[in-house]
Amino acid sequence: MPSRARKPLSAVGEFGLIELIARQSACDRSDVERAIGDDAAVFTGSGQDRFLVTVDVLNESVHFSLDTTSPYLLGRKSLAVNLSDIAAMGGIPLYFFVGLSLPKHLPLDCVRALYRGMQAQARRFNVVLLGGDTVAASGGLSISITLIGRAHPDRILYRRGAQPGDLIFVSGTLGDSALGLALLQKGQRASSRQHLIRRHLDPEPRVALGKALAEAKLATSMIDVSDGVAADLGHILSESKVGAELYCEQLPFSRAYRRQCPQLCSDIYAPALGGGEDYELLFTVASKRRKAVEACAQKLGVDVSCIGHINDNAENLCIINADGSEYTPAKKGHCHF
Amino acid sequence: MPSRARKPLSAVGEFGLIELIARQSACDRSDVERAIGDDAAVFTGSGQDRFLVTVDVLNESVHFSLDTTSPYLLGRKSLAVNLSDIAAMGGIPLYFFVGLSLPKHLPLDCVRALYRGMQAQARRFNVVLLGGDTVAASGGLSISITLIGRAHPDRILYRRGAQPGDLIFVSGTLGDSALGLALLQKGQRASSRQHLIRRHLDPEPRVALGKALAEAKLATSMIDVSDGVAADLGHILSESKVGAELYCEQLPFSRAYRRQCPQLCSDIYAPALGGGEDYELLFTVASKRRKAVEACAQKLGVDVSCIGHINDNAENLCIINADGSEYTPAKKGHCHF
Repeated sequence: MPSRARKPLSAVGEFGLIELIARQSACDRSDVERAIGDDAAVFTGSGQDRFLVTVDVLNESVHFSLDTTSPYLLGRKSLAVNLSDIAAMGGIPLYFFVGLSLPKHLPLDCVRALYRGMQAQARRFNVVLLGGDTVAASGGLSISITLIGRAHPDRILYRRGAQPGDLIFVSGTLGDSALGLALLQKGQRASSRQHLIRRHLDPEPRVALGKALAEAKLATSMIDVSDGVAADLGHILSESKVGAELYCEQLPFSRAYRRQCPQLCSDIYAPALGGGEDYELLFTVASKRRKAVEACAQKLGVDVSCIGHINDNAENLCIINADGSEYTPAKKGHCHF
Repeated sequence: MPSRARKPLSAVGEFGLIELIARQSACDRSDVERAIGDDAAVFTGSGQDRFLVTVDVLNESVHFSLDTTSPYLLGRKSLAVNLSDIAAMGGIPLYFFVGLSLPKHLPLDCVRALYRGMQAQARRFNVVLLGGDTVAASGGLSISITLIGRAHPDRILYRRGAQPGDLIFVSGTLGDSALGLALLQKGQRASSRQHLIRRHLDPEPRVALGKALAEAKLATSMIDVSDGVAADLGHILSESKVGAELYCEQLPFSRAYRRQCPQLCSDIYAPALGGGEDYELLFTVASKRRKAVEACAQKLGVDVSCIGHINDNAENLCIINADGSEYTPAKKGHCHF
């Protein structure tokens, strides 16, 4: 038996596996605008319709713990994660479907609260539950949501449109969710009044901003920050075949982040750059559109920050410290971001 | 705390839970033709487009065991289950999305074989993989597939159209899959040459038949046989608000079923009526269309059998023995179907 046959999954990692699947699944159908490789797939209806589809799976003890969140908040978040993907394409979310694997011991009220959370989030974005499947789990609780949205054909924002000279923008603040998770893991209680914890447990998908940027054609590429801004910018770079410089001192931090980060991590930038689960929008903008982007965001009450720029240094991300030196993540110390 | 709060999930069961969710999710949007409650949801695009969406979750040690199937066949079957749902609406399957939860110890080649199986099935039906999510599992392997299809607006077949006087038809043969599973559980090896086992591990979704019946407007209602013909007919009855008589002696059996059933079950009808996972089409037909239906199926090389008729005895299913007495499932003996 060749050695490859026994190669464990961990040897290729999540992105290695996705690439492997994408290679097996090359698709050249005229009714498909985008298959694997963006925040959502895009297929065409007749006429002007473009439909966006995204799937996210959240597993107990991998993505969440019922010790540190409530079923209601978990329901809200599991839909938010998908809404954020549609937002990152500039689309309008419409319908969702829930594949639910339930451990037998789970109390019925826990399932009801989970759906109440999903439905509360759904109402906020005018999205409706159309179906799914509910089965017994072989392990912990597992929530697989499929969300379908709609977009105008020439208004969809992909990861692949960034151009050298473009500015890099991000909405909101970065790293709050990672610090919130760290606080929960240190035993802090899930209180909705704690900003960092709330940002982790109940993230706000930037649907209105994504749609506005797409409609006004203000951005050249977009992605949501789910894996950490450095990794997600990396996806834009590889899809757009460009490079980037990112400025640490321009990363947007919340007051709570500034106050609490030093107790949790010796590297003030690490949670923001690598923490993930911020569900903010990361997008690139032609420099002449800077003012228009800022005005668009302000109108929606969302902060946006310019954190770097795109260059032609293909797929190379250079992160720059305040003193102009190149940032390298701290390898030691009390930080795991 | 009220006692309801501690009510376990098992107290309401799968259908109780679905009803509960459906009640919470009533949907009156004009762009939604059918939400929860059929084989697939139906939403409208602009113009004539009607899109069908179905989700199925298959969990290790609940729906399958890697001791009795191969990853390749599991991939084929996991897509087949969804294809069967689109078939049951009379639709054309188009795109699928895979939410995959992978145990860390799973060999990479197992994942590749799983995808090879899905892709082989996909090619047979001209369906393409457009995306999904791949994450670590909290328990065993879990496969959640979302399949999107298309249908003509006035050609969709729902569960709700059956009329008193209609004939009840089913495609293929019933109960093979249940007996195949019983053989596997008794330790028989998963050989593709064993008819019953093959029917369990590699079911054939009746996509061409479903589409042909819908296009020619030959059926009044349709469902696929996933829970057993008695239970699935029950769904047609409750959605259509009609009753039915089903004739045991008209149930279609394969030669392998007739030969091997007596060794596995003291009740020759039980695996066919209650076994499930046949993925045949169960549909109702105005009696004057009988010949047209038989000709349509013959043209496609699919056997169909008339197994009963619809009456106005609301939601009452009466199963009749060969001697005219009412059938009741054997409560004792070596049979668990």
